[in-house]
Amino acid sequence: MNQDPSRKFEEITLRTEPIFQGQIISLQVDTVRLPDGREATREIVKHPGAVAVLALLGDKEKMLVVEQYRKPLNKSQVEIPAGKLDPGEDPMDAARRELEEETGYRCASLRHLSSFYTSPGFADELLHLYIAEGLERGQANPDDDEFLDCSAVTLEEAERLIREARISDAKTVLAVYAWKLYKLTGAL
Amino acid sequence: MNQDPSRKFEEITLRTEPIFQGQIISLQVDTVRLPDGREATREIVKHPGAVAVLALLGDKEKMLVVEQYRKPLNKSQVEIPAGKLDPGEDPMDAARRELEEETGYRCASLRHLSSFYTSPGFADELLHLYIAEGLERGQANPDDDEFLDCSAVTLEEAERLIREARISDAKTVLAVYAWKLYKLTGAL
Repeated sequence: MNQDPSRKFEEITLRTEPIFQGQIISLQVDTVRLPDGREATREIVKHPGAVAVLALLGDKEKMLVVEQYRKPLNKSQVEIPAGKLDPGEDPMDAARRELEEETGYRCASLRHLSSFYTSPGFADELLHLYIAEGLERGQANPDDDEFLDCSAVTLEEAERLIREARISDAKTVLAVYAWKLYKLTGAL
Repeated sequence: MNQDPSRKFEEITLRTEPIFQGQIISLQVDTVRLPDGREATREIVKHPGAVAVLALLGDKEKMLVVEQYRKPLNKSQVEIPAGKLDPGEDPMDAARRELEEETGYRCASLRHLSSFYTSPGFADELLHLYIAEGLERGQANPDDDEFLDCSAVTLEEAERLIREARISDAKTVLAVYAWKLYKLTGAL
């Protein structure tokens, strides 16, 4: 009997059908053997992974946010700075890079908070979330096809933006909760 | 000048190329006009939307979790009960349904906590998170191709599972933070 908890209810891959190879994601359909011996198909999006930064100004008084258009949602949203990993890139290096590119800020302190899968039902995207403190302002330098505005919001403003659905992505809502816990307990 | 903040930096769709229509997701590549007039492509996964439930037992002492194999991650994970919306289904009805199907529990109280996009860079999946209290045990009844174990964990156990990466999906990490805030402040 297999005691490794991560193998519980394992689905064995019988076949993989590649569907699409894009610039950011790829898609495949796996045929799997279920624990009861039957077969099923799984639609799987492959993603290189991403980073996001909860960047706190002053004594945790404000958080940096960027406003950008999200084509999949057909609207502009307010989010924490984030971006996908370059091939082979260390996540912490990517966090520093994305923070500086999108906001112009460099940080004295960068700590890993948590890493989580954004949509484990259909995608393997793993997002690494960091907390940046000791911020110093420089010059923003977004990607060629990236249009965004950077600003700083208080916790109360962030909570209002969540209520108004101007902040509505998992990583930013999660980061706002983490920030609130940090302010309440002094630790994370 | 367009004052609607959700239209800021709008990307106008010039063409949509359908790539794949699956049982759960579909994939398309949109060609868009950027704010500076140039063109770019956007790889977009369409998803029907989902629900998840932070189900609290007793005086917020334990949270229901399910353990299931996630083929995109090639491992089994511990998550809060969740599932995708059926066509035309009300999210609150879906939350009650998934809670009962996956855990066997019915709830006296179900409140909306927040709704968030899981991966706004490449997918339109919107997840509605609810808090269930006043739980009463019944009989679980998972989907035909769904194999899972249900259990209940304390906040300390949940935080340990996060550290051990046995809990590692955005909605569950977010729900644990929400639960901690709820215990600390009495409100959500």
